[in-house]
Amino acid sequence: MGKDPLVIFTPSGRRGHVAPGTPVLTAARQLGVDLDSVCGGRGICSRCQITPAYGEFPKHGITVHDDALSEWNAVEQRYEDKRGLKPGRRLGCQAQVMGDVVIDVPPESQVHRQVVRKRAEARDIVMNPAVRLYYVEVAEPDMAHPSGDFERLRSALAEQWDLPGVHIDLPVLSDMQPILRKGEWKVTCAVHLGDAAAPPRIMRIWPGFHEDRIFGLAVDIGSTTIAAHLCDLQSGEVVASSGMMNPQIRFGEDLMSRVSYGMLNKGGAGEMTAALREGLNALFTEVAREGGAETDHILDAVFVCNPVIHHLFLGIDPVELGQAPFALASAGAMNLMARDLDLTVLPPAARVYVLPCIAGHVGADAAAVTLSEAPDKSEDLVLLVDVGTNAEIQLGNRTRVLACSSPTGPAFEGAQISSGQRAAPGAIERVEIDPATKEPRFKVIGCDLWSDDPGFAAATRASGITGICGSGIIEIIAEMRAAGIVDASGLIGSAEQTGSSRCFLDGRTHSYLVWDDSAQGGPRITVTNRDIRAIQMAKAALFSGARLLMDRFGVDRVDRIVLAGAFGAHISPKHAMILGMIPDAPLDKVTSAGNAAGTGARIALLNRDARAEIERTVHEIHKVETAVEPRFQEHFVNASAIPNAVEAFPELAKIVTLPDVSFNQQDEEAGEGAHRRRRRRR
Amino acid sequence: MGKDPLVIFTPSGRRGHVAPGTPVLTAARQLGVDLDSVCGGRGICSRCQITPAYGEFPKHGITVHDDALSEWNAVEQRYEDKRGLKPGRRLGCQAQVMGDVVIDVPPESQVHRQVVRKRAEARDIVMNPAVRLYYVEVAEPDMAHPSGDFERLRSALAEQWDLPGVHIDLPVLSDMQPILRKGEWKVTCAVHLGDAAAPPRIMRIWPGFHEDRIFGLAVDIGSTTIAAHLCDLQSGEVVASSGMMNPQIRFGEDLMSRVSYGMLNKGGAGEMTAALREGLNALFTEVAREGGAETDHILDAVFVCNPVIHHLFLGIDPVELGQAPFALASAGAMNLMARDLDLTVLPPAARVYVLPCIAGHVGADAAAVTLSEAPDKSEDLVLLVDVGTNAEIQLGNRTRVLACSSPTGPAFEGAQISSGQRAAPGAIERVEIDPATKEPRFKVIGCDLWSDDPGFAAATRASGITGICGSGIIEIIAEMRAAGIVDASGLIGSAEQTGSSRCFLDGRTHSYLVWDDSAQGGPRITVTNRDIRAIQMAKAALFSGARLLMDRFGVDRVDRIVLAGAFGAHISPKHAMILGMIPDAPLDKVTSAGNAAGTGARIALLNRDARAEIERTVHEIHKVETAVEPRFQEHFVNASAIPNAVEAFPELAKIVTLPDVSFNQQDEEAGEGAHRRRRRRR
Repeated sequence: MGKDPLVIFTPSGRRGHVAPGTPVLTAARQLGVDLDSVCGGRGICSRCQITPAYGEFPKHGITVHDDALSEWNAVEQRYEDKRGLKPGRRLGCQAQVMGDVVIDVPPESQVHRQVVRKRAEARDIVMNPAVRLYYVEVAEPDMAHPSGDFERLRSALAEQWDLPGVHIDLPVLSDMQPILRKGEWKVTCAVHLGDAAAPPRIMRIWPGFHEDRIFGLAVDIGSTTIAAHLCDLQSGEVVASSGMMNPQIRFGEDLMSRVSYGMLNKGGAGEMTAALREGLNALFTEVAREGGAETDHILDAVFVCNPVIHHLFLGIDPVELGQAPFALASAGAMNLMARDLDLTVLPPAARVYVLPCIAGHVGADAAAVTLSEAPDKSEDLVLLVDVGTNAEIQLGNRTRVLACSSPTGPAFEGAQISSGQRAAPGAIERVEIDPATKEPRFKVIGCDLWSDDPGFAAATRASGITGICGSGIIEIIAEMRAAGIVDASGLIGSAEQTGSSRCFLDGRTHSYLVWDDSAQGGPRITVTNRDIRAIQMAKAALFSGARLLMDRFGVDRVDRIVLAGAFGAHISPKHAMILGMIPDAPLDKVTSAGNAAGTGARIALLNRDARAEIERTVHEIHKVETAVEPRFQEHFVNASAIPNAVEAFPELAKIVTLPDVSFNQQDEEAGEGAHRRRRRRR
Repeated sequence: MGKDPLVIFTPSGRRGHVAPGTPVLTAARQLGVDLDSVCGGRGICSRCQITPAYGEFPKHGITVHDDALSEWNAVEQRYEDKRGLKPGRRLGCQAQVMGDVVIDVPPESQVHRQVVRKRAEARDIVMNPAVRLYYVEVAEPDMAHPSGDFERLRSALAEQWDLPGVHIDLPVLSDMQPILRKGEWKVTCAVHLGDAAAPPRIMRIWPGFHEDRIFGLAVDIGSTTIAAHLCDLQSGEVVASSGMMNPQIRFGEDLMSRVSYGMLNKGGAGEMTAALREGLNALFTEVAREGGAETDHILDAVFVCNPVIHHLFLGIDPVELGQAPFALASAGAMNLMARDLDLTVLPPAARVYVLPCIAGHVGADAAAVTLSEAPDKSEDLVLLVDVGTNAEIQLGNRTRVLACSSPTGPAFEGAQISSGQRAAPGAIERVEIDPATKEPRFKVIGCDLWSDDPGFAAATRASGITGICGSGIIEIIAEMRAAGIVDASGLIGSAEQTGSSRCFLDGRTHSYLVWDDSAQGGPRITVTNRDIRAIQMAKAALFSGARLLMDRFGVDRVDRIVLAGAFGAHISPKHAMILGMIPDAPLDKVTSAGNAAGTGARIALLNRDARAEIERTVHEIHKVETAVEPRFQEHFVNASAIPNAVEAFPELAKIVTLPDVSFNQQDEEAGEGAHRRRRRRR
């Protein structure tokens, strides 16, 4: 034993003595080193590539001689000739340990390789997918010892991969016999490793060694848009992303109108379910096309969505979510098959995992944000806001996490805004207003120039200037407030009051002219007082939810704020704070997590342990129901003011001084605004 | 503790002291007594009825006073007023133990009650179904502690029934919320208790206490006929049985012609699968109608069939079963759902259990016969023969069991026989031929008179005399042999040779006239030499299989023979032995098990432990493949003679002396018979 060669693996640092002639792959398994293999050491899959290092290693106290590994054998040479190996690489299953050696396992040869996320503060994703490929050689049938082909395949998986007791999906069993014979009793199986609802199960079989990649989908179904990310289930790479409008929009823009549609129309919920699933099928076809994947190589899919969409996706009437006590049919994670959900473009046995919901108003999308942003692991107190048609809000740190939902409505997405539009080329997304002249300048999506830069007209000729998107609305109203065009109550001043001819009487209130291309037959873009009211309602709902969680946590300020959601990625923190959308905080402590729900879906897709983890975590989250909290209404009224009638914003005050204007007299005369405000405050 | 009353339960004999005031149901549970309850002790279901016994019990050493149980309470009185209790009965959940008492649990109050089988030698079936009903009271939703309705239902099952971690089928979840509310949070759940492929799962939910019965199906799919038995899953009672022709017959009478149809016609296997499933749906509708059951109360179904039908039922092309090495796609038991198999008249989540196959030619039907007849538990050596289009044969005792299959073809069922017909009114089923006069007399199905009894003509006027069914064919050929009309080689003698004008030249061989109604425009029923050849082939296949197993077992005789299969029930053992269909044995040791495959299916339906048992047992059975056994051919040739060219039949000889006739000269002249025989023997 003392004479057996010493093998040291990097980067793991695992080391041990093995008998001379032991293949590196075998040595790795003996020492618990993470070295991949799909073909089980037959020199076919090349996933076990390693890089031996030669020379002196004083740190390890060994010298690696040139003959530390065996010579190239025929299998390795054939692979090199046919496919080629990177310089210095060997096949771990063929190269045998002959003397002391240091062996590096490159990241792509690790089963549990890490998928690096772009944001520095985000945790990497460790690969541990629920569906894996296994190459096996199956015993041929023998009349003297009759047994089923499947039973012999199962034995092969047990013996060659230590994967006992696998089951098989019936449609796969139906196709199995010709595949076994075509592959001459050598096949590659895609195996789902099992979950709470089912034991390990063969989902697909291919004859011989399966060269192609297998894929999974991470899908974020929003009220308005659906985003699907196609991921390679072995590398973790996102090979394509695609989005579409939620086809349920035709039944109602916001969630409650969809719930109502289901209540008022017999079979309405079923119609919405069918529309969504049909849309998903189209989206999956598209994203597979973009990624150059066959849809029948998509074997796993993870879905996140809010509770109403969650129920409609599963074919459950969401009527109970439209009224107190907002009872979910089931809050737990769902382990299903594509065929259960009419996802007909996927293989019938493709797995579907739906993350658990947190509460009746805080869905699987919020759970996905939790998984991505991990407030439960944060040292400092973090406020997580997923801004969409409905805002899901979480507040917490390692000690505890609170969550609630607030019905912001679609105003933040440009809906219900007179010149509002979805984020698309030509939409105004950034705005500055000169406090002295009250003149605006802006940028539109698809052009990097400001509107007062030379060449702007030429650069935007193709797209035109078509309206204002959600983040543009927030900026322009915040800029109007900062420039003294709008007062704290949300009223736009008259031309006289503001000294700007861009303010004009528009019915019984005033509007502000942003852009006028009507002489050229183009649009006339304005911000009306109605637009400001809509944003006031939305941002008050968002702020009040956050404030309520702060009350419950017993704090008056948070350490940092993370804005999630595709829209959150485009919100300017300064403008959001001027509006009073979010609590006061140092600007550099307000960051964007991008589409954190989609990322959470991707984490659950690539790592099955993350599924178990989030199922545990959501149990620990304390849910707060805004609808029954008396203080919510009080916070809402205060938060209707810009930025807020009672809350101080000391951090904001350090960088912006908001003019103390009031256009109230005007308001009394015009009537409508004050009347509406009073009614709302009752 | 010494003062606590003593409770003695009969018939179990379990006894123990319980605190005064303990309800009898609770006492039963504490003492491990099998006392049923669906409502969990709420006085609703009445399944826990017991009969207290009063007076002196010297055997038990106690005296039971009139006040040994508590007075009738309001719940019990209400039940008595509304539904009535049998005299002397009490509700076990309401009556409390106040003093020493002897309590009898009647059979219908036992969960694991025994279903008595008609045959004295057959084991009773102990009730232990896979699907059970549970009444629960579910906590209402609470906004302060949000959770899903299903999660609260699951907790209720865990707490009230000690049934933790149940899952729910998605279609059931879809309907759950309105049912919970309709039942005011009291519901009855049908729960499948789980199997190898899945954990316990809620299959149906009804509001309140569910009064109606739930059902299961035991289905025997034969090549020719399908039989379905509808069983009450609580009492075990067969409430209706119904049968139909297998709709696959139009693709081929025998199994191999169906396999060929699938090979020669693209999509042919799929056509046969669809035809079978469609037929099953019609049959289930019919049997439910007969049993007065709603099809959506059918929650479990057990199927048995031979391997080719097994594969076609599951949607697997049986092509591999048509050629060596006869590899099954899967030999194991199948746990599926009705929706997996397009059994659309059943609830989609209804369970389907398919018994395991024993080998490529010995299917789940043979496994069901094993379960019913238990050769593996027999002290004496039993030969089990399931006679159908294919014969499955088992030979064994407690030490070991051997099994094989033999392709008898459909001749035993009246097919390929010139005057053959299926068993139906008007078919000749019993025959006697006078050895002196060679005159036949017979009975037809639907009439108890012999054909020479007065009144026979009038009694059979409605049905007519239409042909000969399978058991009739066996009797008539055996009688022809015994009367010297047919010789040992299977040749019919001429009128001269036999001295009977009923023998006549019919082409190149002779035929025997059984019945001539042609003067009245009716049929002319004859037995041709071709008919005898067909039966010779079939019976030789059957005998050779049995003999082969005897060789392997190392015996020359068996202790007893059990004929299974619906047809087996009608075979006369004496005639079967004259033909040499079965090995020699004392006639009283040849019994019929009726439809043992169907009974096996029923056992597996009513007792989930029996499923685990048969899955273990089939592993132990030693399979013999007749197609590759050189001795099979030798046995076959010998068994072509009537009864056999080499085997002695000493038991048969004690009761019948077969005339030593030979009509060979005639044969040489006519040519055809000898020619065919020679060809077969090559």
